[in-house]
Amino acid sequence: MLGQQPQLPGEFELIADYFAPLSKGFPGAFGLLDDAAIISPASGHDLVAKTDAIVGGVHFEPDDPADLIARKALRVNLSDIAGKGANARAYMLDLVLPHTTTAAWLSAFCDGLAADQNEYGVHLIGGDTNATPGTLTIAVTAFGEVPRGRMLRRSSAHADDLIFVTGTIGDAALGLRVLCGELPSLKTKTAASLVGRYRLPQPRVDVGPLLLDVATATIDVSDGLLADLGHICEMSGLSAVISTNDIPLSPAAQQALSADRSIIAAIVAGGDDYEILFTAPLGAVSKIDEISRSTGVPITMIGRMEKISPNIETPVTLLDPSGTPLKIGNRGWTHFGRL
Amino acid sequence: MLGQQPQLPGEFELIADYFAPLSKGFPGAFGLLDDAAIISPASGHDLVAKTDAIVGGVHFEPDDPADLIARKALRVNLSDIAGKGANARAYMLDLVLPHTTTAAWLSAFCDGLAADQNEYGVHLIGGDTNATPGTLTIAVTAFGEVPRGRMLRRSSAHADDLIFVTGTIGDAALGLRVLCGELPSLKTKTAASLVGRYRLPQPRVDVGPLLLDVATATIDVSDGLLADLGHICEMSGLSAVISTNDIPLSPAAQQALSADRSIIAAIVAGGDDYEILFTAPLGAVSKIDEISRSTGVPITMIGRMEKISPNIETPVTLLDPSGTPLKIGNRGWTHFGRL
Repeated sequence: MLGQQPQLPGEFELIADYFAPLSKGFPGAFGLLDDAAIISPASGHDLVAKTDAIVGGVHFEPDDPADLIARKALRVNLSDIAGKGANARAYMLDLVLPHTTTAAWLSAFCDGLAADQNEYGVHLIGGDTNATPGTLTIAVTAFGEVPRGRMLRRSSAHADDLIFVTGTIGDAALGLRVLCGELPSLKTKTAASLVGRYRLPQPRVDVGPLLLDVATATIDVSDGLLADLGHICEMSGLSAVISTNDIPLSPAAQQALSADRSIIAAIVAGGDDYEILFTAPLGAVSKIDEISRSTGVPITMIGRMEKISPNIETPVTLLDPSGTPLKIGNRGWTHFGRL
Repeated sequence: MLGQQPQLPGEFELIADYFAPLSKGFPGAFGLLDDAAIISPASGHDLVAKTDAIVGGVHFEPDDPADLIARKALRVNLSDIAGKGANARAYMLDLVLPHTTTAAWLSAFCDGLAADQNEYGVHLIGGDTNATPGTLTIAVTAFGEVPRGRMLRRSSAHADDLIFVTGTIGDAALGLRVLCGELPSLKTKTAASLVGRYRLPQPRVDVGPLLLDVATATIDVSDGLLADLGHICEMSGLSAVISTNDIPLSPAAQQALSADRSIIAAIVAGGDDYEILFTAPLGAVSKIDEISRSTGVPITMIGRMEKISPNIETPVTLLDPSGTPLKIGNRGWTHFGRL
């Protein structure tokens, strides 16, 4: 009654027509025809679980393409699963839809999920759809598998470990600025590539599980490079020194930075990168090169972990090209509350 | 930036002060200090997972007491876990908070969670907190454990099985009517007891796991007795016949029904009961009595499963006291989309 959606079919048709096809191939989902799912890790493995919600007007614009919203909701969770060295297997979905949601929108949304299920080998195993007088909100809980006791942690970096990051940093944060009407000097195509990174993260699912043999500590970069490296520092009881020169930038980010050097703050603190940041000992460098080659994902060394120095303000020191420490006001996008 | 909460402390203080204490005692939660949790079933068991969201203005009023909102969000999920015969162990929480949320509200909310964690032996193992320009929304994903391959299903009822339900039916639906200003003939205390059932479900966590040895099919009653019995019928390929005379009613519901017989529709179709509906063979009756005695939860036989008759409109036939089939327009509260 209170929650009905005049634009959409009833709940059973919704499940049958839109969601049940996404559960096909996962026996424990029971075709979404029961009250709960069974998700058990394979023998000798732990189940890794992560939940993250995205909210219209906060993490995406409500008029963004529905398939991209769906894929972003899923991918931000797959990024965490990969960042912990686990292989993603399945997910659950809480979908909270405004009353104006149409069947066409929902169809495109599910097409996005289907495309990513195909890309990442995961299945929808349960969920809940509700109407809201408020804003489109999507919560995903993702499940992955990791060999027992091996989940990669934030807390296990060592002093003198090197610091690495996959892919490039800052693109999504700059993409958000483009969407806000900033960075007018960029060419249309360049600007679009940044917006694409903001709208559709590329979780490093191939790299993550391969890091089990090399990384000492890992985190996926969602709050911003400085903030997330700060998490590793705090949890490991260490400091870190990185250099702006070493931070891997896309050609688009390089262009933006050339036009305005102050944009380095957005790059290192902006967040939404969904790259994997990790620490590893010097002896692991050749294996890391091999992982980069075999996956085709660039991996760049950006700094080094150090013992905590009592006279520094923040655990992460960012050096400019001359070797002078930079001060970034906001260590990452504190969007309040990634638990 | 976009998602900040002027009323609340930053995300790390939020986690440390409000949420981390709720993870204490569950090693795989890592004190909510990592990106993901580990939740693996005990040897010989399956992990049962369920997610359900509740939305302000739909499932509760935004000015309801914060602790009750928290407990309802958790309990609707624990009810499903229990209904599948599983023991609940842990949950994850996606909390989407309006910008006006205060620390006092969040503190009361977490007190509610703490109280229920204590009552049900579950722990918070991860989550995500976000700001929204919209409505308070809470998604919970709950995890339970069941002996391997034994999860109770909707689909395994047999013809001639008897139909049972725990507790009483209709109280929550009538409580919602009271909140909407209806049922003016009820005494204040009676009305309050109904509102209490709406605001704070009593999931049958003690009964659920004991049903593994007796029930053929189960479901928790959330969409309404008729709708949920209909789910068992459809999934089991059977019909059901129940009688209004046999439906267990609280004294409050009996009073409401005495004043207005038409209210039977709200009772059998209203939903939000969070009782367990199950089928079992005649031979299980003495064991079911024993479960009721040992748990102190009333269990009532309300009807019988039958082979599908080709000339009936709906799978569930509801007989009035004279044995005449009743017609209820809306078979349960189709709130669109419990997957």
